[in-house]
Amino acid sequence: MKRSDRLVAMTNYLIEHPMELISLPFFSDTYGAAKSSISEDLTIINRIFREDGIGYLASVSGAAGGVKYVPQVSEDKSREFIDQLCKELEDPGRILPGGYLFMSDILGNPDTVRNIGRLFASRFAELSIDSIVTVATKGIPLAYAVASFLNVPVIIVRRDPKVTEGSTVSINYVSGSSKKIQTMVLSKRSLKPNENVCIIDDFMKAGGTINGMKSLLEEFNANVKAIGVLAEAEDDEEERVVDEYTSLVQIKNVDDNNKQIEVIKGNYFH
Amino acid sequence: MKRSDRLVAMTNYLIEHPMELISLPFFSDTYGAAKSSISEDLTIINRIFREDGIGYLASVSGAAGGVKYVPQVSEDKSREFIDQLCKELEDPGRILPGGYLFMSDILGNPDTVRNIGRLFASRFAELSIDSIVTVATKGIPLAYAVASFLNVPVIIVRRDPKVTEGSTVSINYVSGSSKKIQTMVLSKRSLKPNENVCIIDDFMKAGGTINGMKSLLEEFNANVKAIGVLAEAEDDEEERVVDEYTSLVQIKNVDDNNKQIEVIKGNYFH
Repeated sequence: MKRSDRLVAMTNYLIEHPMELISLPFFSDTYGAAKSSISEDLTIINRIFREDGIGYLASVSGAAGGVKYVPQVSEDKSREFIDQLCKELEDPGRILPGGYLFMSDILGNPDTVRNIGRLFASRFAELSIDSIVTVATKGIPLAYAVASFLNVPVIIVRRDPKVTEGSTVSINYVSGSSKKIQTMVLSKRSLKPNENVCIIDDFMKAGGTINGMKSLLEEFNANVKAIGVLAEAEDDEEERVVDEYTSLVQIKNVDDNNKQIEVIKGNYFH
Repeated sequence: MKRSDRLVAMTNYLIEHPMELISLPFFSDTYGAAKSSISEDLTIINRIFREDGIGYLASVSGAAGGVKYVPQVSEDKSREFIDQLCKELEDPGRILPGGYLFMSDILGNPDTVRNIGRLFASRFAELSIDSIVTVATKGIPLAYAVASFLNVPVIIVRRDPKVTEGSTVSINYVSGSSKKIQTMVLSKRSLKPNENVCIIDDFMKAGGTINGMKSLLEEFNANVKAIGVLAEAEDDEEERVVDEYTSLVQIKNVDDNNKQIEVIKGNYFH
C-alpha cells in the first residue's frame, strides 16, 4: 500500500480504536509496509491530530509496545463549544413551568452529545477508568459518548429492577433536594470488584442522585475516580452533598415569571 | 498543507461528519489547496473507504454540490459481526429465570453498540430519515449509534411523563404478548410534523411496544420509514403485530431447564 492510502486507512483505524494499544507489527502486516515507514506515517498522523486539536498518539516502547490514540480537545475548541452550549441553553423558550429547563433537544443531537463525551474523556483520560456508570434515562447518551472515547463499557443504574437484569443489588437513598427516599438497583453481573469507575449524568442539583450512585457503587467495592455532569444548578450550594465533580455549564438564575435564564461555564476549566 | 497532512485531516473530518454535504471550496480554504488537489485527495479517500468496507464518498455536482460520506458496512464485515453476536448470545450463562436473556453487557460495550448502529445506518441510509425514535431504556444507546452515522437527532419515548419534557402527547396501547394496557408519552416539542422517522429498539417479541410507538408517532403525522431491532424472539410469530422490520439476530429456543439457547441471524440479509 502507498503512503497516501495507508494514511487514510490508519487514520480511520486509530479514530475507531481510541485508547487501544496497537502494535507496529499489526500496522506493518495489515498495510504491507516496513516498520520504518509506519513510524513515519504515525509521526504525520500525530502532528495533524495535535494541530486539529483532537488528541495525540502516545507511544509505548518495548516488546509489548505500540501506539495509542488518546482523544483530547484543545482548550480553544473546549471553550468555543461550552460557550455555544451556554448560549443555546439561555434561550427563554426552554423555561418550563416550575423553573425547569427543556434540554431534550440538545441531548438528542448526536453531534453535541459526542462533543460532550469527548470533553469528559479528554479530562478523565489519565485516570485508568474501567467503566462509566450512569443512571437511567437522560444520562445514558452522555455516558456512551464518554465511554466510546475511553473505550470502556457503560453500566446503567436503574430506578426499578427489571427481569432482564438478573439478580440485582439495591439501595435506598435520600434525594438531595426533595428529601424523599428513593431506590436504585444495579445488576450483580455488571461490575467486577475494585473497578475504577467514572459517574456521568446530565444534571446535578443537590447531588442526591450521584450520592446514591456512590453508595451503590460501594457495594461493589468500586473506586469512583471521577464524576462528570453536563449541567449543575447553582442555587443549592449549601445543600450540596457531592464535592468533587466536573461540570460543563452552570445554570444560575431561572426566572420563570420574567422568562429569563442565565447559564455560565461550569468548573471544567478550574 | 502537504497531501499527506491533508489526507489525515480530511479523513478525520469526513468520519466526524457523516451524511453531511461538504463543499470543495470548504476543503480548499481549510487546507489551503487547489480544488484539483482536493479532488485527487477525495478520490484516494473514497477508494480506501470502499476497500476498508466502511462506506463511500457520494459526489453531488453543481453550485451547491460537494461530497458526502455515506457510512456502509461491507457484506463480509456485516456477516462476521452478526455471527460473532449470535455466538456471544448463545452463552448459556445468559439465561435468566423465566427464559429471559441477559444482554446488558453486550449493550454496554460502546464498540459493539457502534457497530450495530453502523449496520442499521448502512441499511437505512437511502431513506432520508429525519430522526431516530426509541423508547426508554435499553434502546437508547442503539438509537444514538444509528443517529450518529445518519447525522440526525434522537427522540426518546417514555413510559412516564417527566416535568423536564414540557407538555407531552400520550397514548395507551395494548402490549403484544402480555395483553396489558400500557402508556407512552412523547414531548410535544420533539417532532415536527411529517418527519421521516426510523424506530430503533433492542428487542421485539410480539411487537406491541413498537406498535405503540407507531400509534404515538401518528399523532405527530410522522412517516415511519424503517424499524430496526437488535434481537427478535422467534416464538411469537402468530401473535406478531408488526410486519416490516429489520432484525440483526433471532433468538429461537431458550430452554431454561436444560440451559440451552439457539440464536440465528435475523432478517438483515433477506
